[in-house]
Amino acid sequence: MLVRDLSETDLLASFVPLLPAGRATRLGPGDDAAVLGVAGDLVVTTDVLVEDRHFRTAWSTGEDVGWRAAMQNLADVAAMGAEPTGLVVALAMPGDTPAAWVTDLARGLAAACAPHGVGVIGGDLSGGPAICVAVTAFGELDGRPPVLRSGARVGDVVAVAGTLGRSAAGLALLTAHEHDGVVPPPGTDLLTRTYRRPDPPLTAGVEAAHAGATAMLDVSDGLLRDAGRIATASGVALDLDVGALAPDVELLAEAAESLGVDPLAWVLTGGEDHALLATFPPGALPASFRPVGRVGSGKGVTLDGEPWVGSFGWDHFGY
Amino acid sequence: MLVRDLSETDLLASFVPLLPAGRATRLGPGDDAAVLGVAGDLVVTTDVLVEDRHFRTAWSTGEDVGWRAAMQNLADVAAMGAEPTGLVVALAMPGDTPAAWVTDLARGLAAACAPHGVGVIGGDLSGGPAICVAVTAFGELDGRPPVLRSGARVGDVVAVAGTLGRSAAGLALLTAHEHDGVVPPPGTDLLTRTYRRPDPPLTAGVEAAHAGATAMLDVSDGLLRDAGRIATASGVALDLDVGALAPDVELLAEAAESLGVDPLAWVLTGGEDHALLATFPPGALPASFRPVGRVGSGKGVTLDGEPWVGSFGWDHFGY
Repeated sequence: MLVRDLSETDLLASFVPLLPAGRATRLGPGDDAAVLGVAGDLVVTTDVLVEDRHFRTAWSTGEDVGWRAAMQNLADVAAMGAEPTGLVVALAMPGDTPAAWVTDLARGLAAACAPHGVGVIGGDLSGGPAICVAVTAFGELDGRPPVLRSGARVGDVVAVAGTLGRSAAGLALLTAHEHDGVVPPPGTDLLTRTYRRPDPPLTAGVEAAHAGATAMLDVSDGLLRDAGRIATASGVALDLDVGALAPDVELLAEAAESLGVDPLAWVLTGGEDHALLATFPPGALPASFRPVGRVGSGKGVTLDGEPWVGSFGWDHFGY
Repeated sequence: MLVRDLSETDLLASFVPLLPAGRATRLGPGDDAAVLGVAGDLVVTTDVLVEDRHFRTAWSTGEDVGWRAAMQNLADVAAMGAEPTGLVVALAMPGDTPAAWVTDLARGLAAACAPHGVGVIGGDLSGGPAICVAVTAFGELDGRPPVLRSGARVGDVVAVAGTLGRSAAGLALLTAHEHDGVVPPPGTDLLTRTYRRPDPPLTAGVEAAHAGATAMLDVSDGLLRDAGRIATASGVALDLDVGALAPDVELLAEAAESLGVDPLAWVLTGGEDHALLATFPPGALPASFRPVGRVGSGKGVTLDGEPWVGSFGWDHFGY
């Protein structure tokens, strides 16, 4: 059964019942718009996943893609110090997409959202030349100011909640296996799973806000690049402690050896684990964060005081 | 200059300054998420426009597409009886898209939003195989309940604010001109303009809510199909008065004659002018609405008491 064999009504009838109603949903799918209960200022973010660019149907199921589309947006909400409450999804896809892929996508959205009380409150389904999943997510600040990228101060501690480099390593393993037949070492399932279904520490965002985080973002383009964004926005320098990243590097060592690459590069430039990177006044670190560096005067990002001379990863429009 | 010649940073630097800050914008583009001021329950809607399916770059400029992407979402917000306050946009596009097309899109979003105090508060830009514009829009209910599709009652008046069939006529003229060389009659610019830049009566949505509208939606798939949605959701029958539609038909007569078609079909089945269709208790019609029928018992939609035997227009996944 393909999407083009179904009317829009039929497709919606198989999709909508799979979606969770969150705790803030006042009106779910079915009318011109949904209604979300909001207590004060609302955090809003949008991100799009495009087939063959951000995912491949050969490597990720519809459920994986739904999970990832939800999580990368919920991580952006968490990175403002907000609690995610809901999301909407706009999905364009070719008529020869299996209808089961679309309901799997709904299941993946639900699996990512429901445990956090996040509702999938509305959406739009359309034809298109490739699968394109645009999610817009919402979160509550509960009266707190948002944690921006611009508030880091000299003397602050740089800290991370969540994992680094696993998604990049997982993607590299999948790519090497397909192109060069490299067999992934045993025990690397964790890495490909993180690529398919990143599991960012969503509740750590609110914890960071309560603890007085001065700046925060989620690591979507790599630790160095995203640390550089905090440095630029705050007008400070961030120095990372390579020793503090040793556990992250160690976890990737076997996979890196199998591909003949440096695992530190994955930790420093791999995004899409959607870890939270934040700065805190000394002594203020909440339990979910571990220190990885400090804020100094100047600009840019250094590693043990030295600049990084490797690549910074990819750009969204490069080929 | 093409999109692929620019970094994401460069592209954002040319795009973001063109976007209007609306009256409810607390934090605009540049961080992980935006912040929207919200006084109570929030109306949320999302819609996607896909190249060569919903628009063609040969017929619509980037500015036209930006305008239309904004307006079709703002109309959904208005159709809930809400006042639009902001939107976010997720844009995927090929690397060979002219960079000027993208900034034109930002100008079109701004032209549609700024006069209504609506902010373009955030977005995401990505590569992709075709241009895909997903807009999510927000609106305030100011403590009123949303106007759903399900509240129409026997004895209510069916009424319309805005135009009917012009966008469909405009698209038919553009198609006939390209395929068969048919020269559009003089004076039909209004129709192609409505196709490119629909101008729904946004403020009529709140007026309808204040006047006690019992049901409302925006006509995006054609008057008959959308009236049928109110009938089904409300458990009633809607009878439309063909005589009341005569001015709409008359305006399309010359264009219809040039193509040898029935202008009534455009009025009844053409969507995308995004008129508002609502039901009101007798005597409650606000000035922006004109009566076009009445609500009775039973089900479905009739025209002067008779069923429509023509086509109902297109389905989103058919080819």
